[in-house]
Amino acid sequence: MLIIMRLDADRSDVERVKGKIKLLGYLPHEIPGEERLAIGITGNKGKVDPELFLTLPGVLEAIPVTKPFKLVSRDAHPAGTIVKVEGAGPLGGKELAVIAGPCSVESRQQIIEIAWMLKEMGIKFLRGGAYKPRTSPYSFQGYKADALEFLKEAKEVTGMRIVTEVKDTETLPIVAECADVLQVGARNMQNYSLLEAVGAQKKPVLLKRGFAATIEEFLMAAEYILYAGNLNVILCERGIRTFETSTRNTLDLNSIPIIRKLCHLPIIVDPSHGIGVWDGVSAMSMAAVAAGADGLIIEVHPDPSAALSDGYQSLKPSTFKALLERLEQLAPIMERTLTLSHAEVS
Amino acid sequence: MLIIMRLDADRSDVERVKGKIKLLGYLPHEIPGEERLAIGITGNKGKVDPELFLTLPGVLEAIPVTKPFKLVSRDAHPAGTIVKVEGAGPLGGKELAVIAGPCSVESRQQIIEIAWMLKEMGIKFLRGGAYKPRTSPYSFQGYKADALEFLKEAKEVTGMRIVTEVKDTETLPIVAECADVLQVGARNMQNYSLLEAVGAQKKPVLLKRGFAATIEEFLMAAEYILYAGNLNVILCERGIRTFETSTRNTLDLNSIPIIRKLCHLPIIVDPSHGIGVWDGVSAMSMAAVAAGADGLIIEVHPDPSAALSDGYQSLKPSTFKALLERLEQLAPIMERTLTLSHAEVS
Amino acid sequence: MLIIMRLDADRSDVERVKGKIKLLGYLPHEIPGEERLAIGITGNKGKVDPELFLTLPGVLEAIPVTKPFKLVSRDAHPAGTIVKVEGAGPLGGKELAVIAGPCSVESRQQIIEIAWMLKEMGIKFLRGGAYKPRTSPYSFQGYKADALEFLKEAKEVTGMRIVTEVKDTETLPIVAECADVLQVGARNMQNYSLLEAVGAQKKPVLLKRGFAATIEEFLMAAEYILYAGNLNVILCERGIRTFETSTRNTLDLNSIPIIRKLCHLPIIVDPSHGIGVWDGVSAMSMAAVAAGADGLIIEVHPDPSAALSDGYQSLKPSTFKALLERLEQLAPIMERTLTLSHAEVS
Amino acid sequence: MLIIMRLDADRSDVERVKGKIKLLGYLPHEIPGEERLAIGITGNKGKVDPELFLTLPGVLEAIPVTKPFKLVSRDAHPAGTIVKVEGAGPLGGKELAVIAGPCSVESRQQIIEIAWMLKEMGIKFLRGGAYKPRTSPYSFQGYKADALEFLKEAKEVTGMRIVTEVKDTETLPIVAECADVLQVGARNMQNYSLLEAVGAQKKPVLLKRGFAATIEEFLMAAEYILYAGNLNVILCERGIRTFETSTRNTLDLNSIPIIRKLCHLPIIVDPSHGIGVWDGVSAMSMAAVAAGADGLIIEVHPDPSAALSDGYQSLKPSTFKALLERLEQLAPIMERTLTLSHAEVS
Repeated sequence: MLIIMRLDADRSDVERVKGKIKLLGYLPHEIPGEERLAIGITGNKGKVDPELFLTLPGVLEAIPVTKPFKLVSRDAHPAGTIVKVEGAGPLGGKELAVIAGPCSVESRQQIIEIAWMLKEMGIKFLRGGAYKPRTSPYSFQGYKADALEFLKEAKEVTGMRIVTEVKDTETLPIVAECADVLQVGARNMQNYSLLEAVGAQKKPVLLKRGFAATIEEFLMAAEYILYAGNLNVILCERGIRTFETSTRNTLDLNSIPIIRKLCHLPIIVDPSHGIGVWDGVSAMSMAAVAAGADGLIIEVHPDPSAALSDGYQSLKPSTFKALLERLEQLAPIMERTLTLSHAEVS
Repeated sequence: MLIIMRLDADRSDVERVKGKIKLLGYLPHEIPGEERLAIGITGNKGKVDPELFLTLPGVLEAIPVTKPFKLVSRDAHPAGTIVKVEGAGPLGGKELAVIAGPCSVESRQQIIEIAWMLKEMGIKFLRGGAYKPRTSPYSFQGYKADALEFLKEAKEVTGMRIVTEVKDTETLPIVAECADVLQVGARNMQNYSLLEAVGAQKKPVLLKRGFAATIEEFLMAAEYILYAGNLNVILCERGIRTFETSTRNTLDLNSIPIIRKLCHLPIIVDPSHGIGVWDGVSAMSMAAVAAGADGLIIEVHPDPSAALSDGYQSLKPSTFKALLERLEQLAPIMERTLTLSHAEVS
Repeated sequence: MLIIMRLDADRSDVERVKGKIKLLGYLPHEIPGEERLAIGITGNKGKVDPELFLTLPGVLEAIPVTKPFKLVSRDAHPAGTIVKVEGAGPLGGKELAVIAGPCSVESRQQIIEIAWMLKEMGIKFLRGGAYKPRTSPYSFQGYKADALEFLKEAKEVTGMRIVTEVKDTETLPIVAECADVLQVGARNMQNYSLLEAVGAQKKPVLLKRGFAATIEEFLMAAEYILYAGNLNVILCERGIRTFETSTRNTLDLNSIPIIRKLCHLPIIVDPSHGIGVWDGVSAMSMAAVAAGADGLIIEVHPDPSAALSDGYQSLKPSTFKALLERLEQLAPIMERTLTLSHAEVS
Repeated sequence: MLIIMRLDADRSDVERVKGKIKLLGYLPHEIPGEERLAIGITGNKGKVDPELFLTLPGVLEAIPVTKPFKLVSRDAHPAGTIVKVEGAGPLGGKELAVIAGPCSVESRQQIIEIAWMLKEMGIKFLRGGAYKPRTSPYSFQGYKADALEFLKEAKEVTGMRIVTEVKDTETLPIVAECADVLQVGARNMQNYSLLEAVGAQKKPVLLKRGFAATIEEFLMAAEYILYAGNLNVILCERGIRTFETSTRNTLDLNSIPIIRKLCHLPIIVDPSHGIGVWDGVSAMSMAAVAAGADGLIIEVHPDPSAALSDGYQSLKPSTFKALLERLEQLAPIMERTLTLSHAEVS
């Protein structure tokens, strides 16, 4: 059940509704919208009677929710959520978000070098893995705490905002201290303890779709985070597992219009993992934005052939810059903006 | 093995090469290119020695082919094939191809009405099913020969070119008489007898990807048609089967850049079957063109709720027109043209 | 709708019911059972009123069918269909059916040699491909009409019954003349013209599940054959396409209990294509029978390493014989019989 | 690289080899076998020279390993691992292991009642979920610490051994205190922090295959646990995600012979989650054992229709007992034993 408050409802009206919800033994969740406030009710087993709330002052509507997700439902927040990141402009608004950087932080020099390159192109979000979940225990697992220090330094010197993955609850405090946006990876999409933990802290969360997760399961994973108290979630489509072997994954752009209809959270696309071959990344980036994505997260490496991980799907800075120029042309057709700096890449 | 002829090679050089190929017990296939002629060799079990041809007059190169497909390989025809359809402009060139119309021809009046609507928007290709392969023997299977007559009449009065499906070799002659482009459906992508039959006639063939076909199998199916002698094949991505249930299929746009790299044939996209829900069709159409597709085939019905088949994924004419206007903006960014008429839809 | 006739109903009762069905504009289909006769009604768009039939003499019940399939539904024939093949015992009864032989007929000598080997082990059904649908036009496509002659000779000299694939309607007459059981391959499972053609002739049909077909689509494909008039259909599970790459397909034994519940047709399993690696075939054969399959179809080749197709998944005669001995132990636990000859394999 | 020690190698030989491995900067892992000891080398980037070890006393062979998994490879331990559980007989040996019980511990009374029922049938392992990972935050998540207490009591009174799931590192100590075998669920198969944590403690681990994990990824997940020091891992096939919708998952029995060939760990099957419908569980249980599984884990509930989770796939005690009787007949054919008590189920 969602309670939609009137435009002229004041704080005491809101508290009265929340009080009644608690009195019934349920949990209230405030979901701020552009114009109105909605209050989600969770914890009820059966149907809740709308009459119980429609008679309270300040209440406009009481909408029963039949989907399994409630807090992430577009009904709860029709205008769409905009996630604010201090110093870097919001995610989910008119400005197309572009997050770029290497798969892994490989050295102090590497990350600072690529950060400057990206900064000069006008990019505001730097990605880079410190803790890397890997299929094999014998693969490079990231430079961990050292990498976090290098990311912090990259942020200090360039002013770029940091997006990096948190892989478990143990390292959450140290990663959250460094990250401006915490990434939860595809393999952890149904690690509910981690979802609850990132939901219980304040940093925005970039949640990647599990490679075998249905769209409904993906939204239910986001629901866990909102339910734990953090409304600042950005969804990220990154491809699903199919029988096709000529691509690393099958980037499922169908999820963009489907999720847009069902859910109010911003959704961005990771074409690098999605198609998994560098010379398909530009085409899939253009396609993602044309499908309506709020942004992109792209692997860019100063020297892909020397990368410690995912080199085959990483773009060279010059290829990335050429892509940005095409995205800049595409953005206005999608009623988006993309503000780039047109300095030369060294 | 592909033999690439020199620019100044004349007919006698070509015949000499073909003669040598036959002498060795293999089959030669001419593959005309924009500038040069290539000659594919098939029928060889093992490796063919390039030396055998490099010494002949007029031969520029002899390229061993390691992919399982030869005639459809981009190596055979780097510039890309343009399929000409008399009276409607080519498929695969600079002009974005748009094929539109109802899933099924439902009546004389329906098909002529929608043909006029589409014609007035500037569309040159009319789709409409006469013979419909259906999962259930109890579902509507198309109006067959009657529907072909209605399509012919729609062509006569509007001048639109006809794209319609051929479902078996028995009805191929009658369908080919009506169709300007013969569609081979997804379920028939590995019906090799049908592939050979459409390969042995002259009309261009629109080959849909089977819903569980890998890209390599898709290209091998096209190879059957070229091998049988028909070079005018247009590929059509229409979605693959995955675990996701919120879409009818998973439209796999990743195939566009992958196929572009491997194969010289034009490739268009069917977003209607691909995502399978009408309110996702526009987003996926935009995405397909941004991914580099040569065109689109879209289900448009005057009254989707009354359609005998696929109503749920069909666009209303007004929605389709709005999409065309967005595609018109997108085309130049993709170095394409899309020439529409801007008359009002009644 | 299914009309179930009383035990004491006579021919005139049956004809009266069929007459009434036709009068209503529908089609009647007789489905003989062990005890009772059922009459399926197809061709109706909406619901048929059971009252119309319950008042007729000889009618026991009128059962509305909500599943999309009718004639193949177990409701139509609760006891299960037994397909009789003259000279080889029935398929679908107490006796476990074992069909064995090479993927392709490779020579007169090869097929007669393996036929004798199998015959000596007690096998009654010989498989062998004459027309082979292949992914590549450059792969061996079978010895076609010659292979059919060799199969006929193998039948004459050994008395074994022949199971061979029909790949199109053009070659159906010549293949049906040779085959005791006509196989429709996985790629043709939704080739409806072929399904209708094998439905319109008398030979039993072994229908393989398409590698991306749901169980419901599989049963609907069988429905096409029954609807065309041929009740003698044997289903064959042969594996589906999934993301797993260490097996050629994923043999889906789950389909055995599911289909058993829904459908009255016998179902056998093809472990050779199912797992696709010879050293997994015995384990999957045992598992198939333990899951309740009515039989097996197994690729056996005198010299797998020299096979023209599918050698990697074929058993040597000695391995096959060892498997038969284990199946002979398993059969009674499944309330089946398996009568083998225990002569030595030369 | 695997170093295989001679039969007559003594402790000092082993320590000498391990010392040399460490000297080279790599890690040694002892893998005890039935007859011989193997020592796995990990931590090497490139190839290790076998000569370095073949000259040491007590060394029989030095086998380079090309598979990505080393410690779980059958090469490391050809005879197969047998996991001992005090008081309940080993897993992976001649005795077929049967683990049974409800999906969730629902009350003290429920778990003790079902424990007694199962005990009377001869079952030695009781399953029951205390912490339940669920797709929705609003679904029943288990009775957690209370449920662990009930399980302990069930163990005390019946003597059955407890198999229960651990869902995160935080609750690992409390769950490990109760469990005789720790289950790691399908969603956590690539939760590497959890794999490392269960690898660093002593209790045997039952690792379920992720529903979109390839067999290779499944074995790599087990490799993480062995690499962290715990050799007592039991693999559990529980079905993969495919396009099929008539079963909850597609139980992939093909994995049994494939894993048996590649890996020395015991493998059991979960037919309840695998097929996901109760009336298919018995057929798939029989099939699993016939495919060569070392055991089964089956959901049994005193009253499935009242279960708080997974009722639809749970067996009633009477159905389970009938299955056990059929398994008892099947076991000797598979060269297994299954010792049941034949007391009546109340």
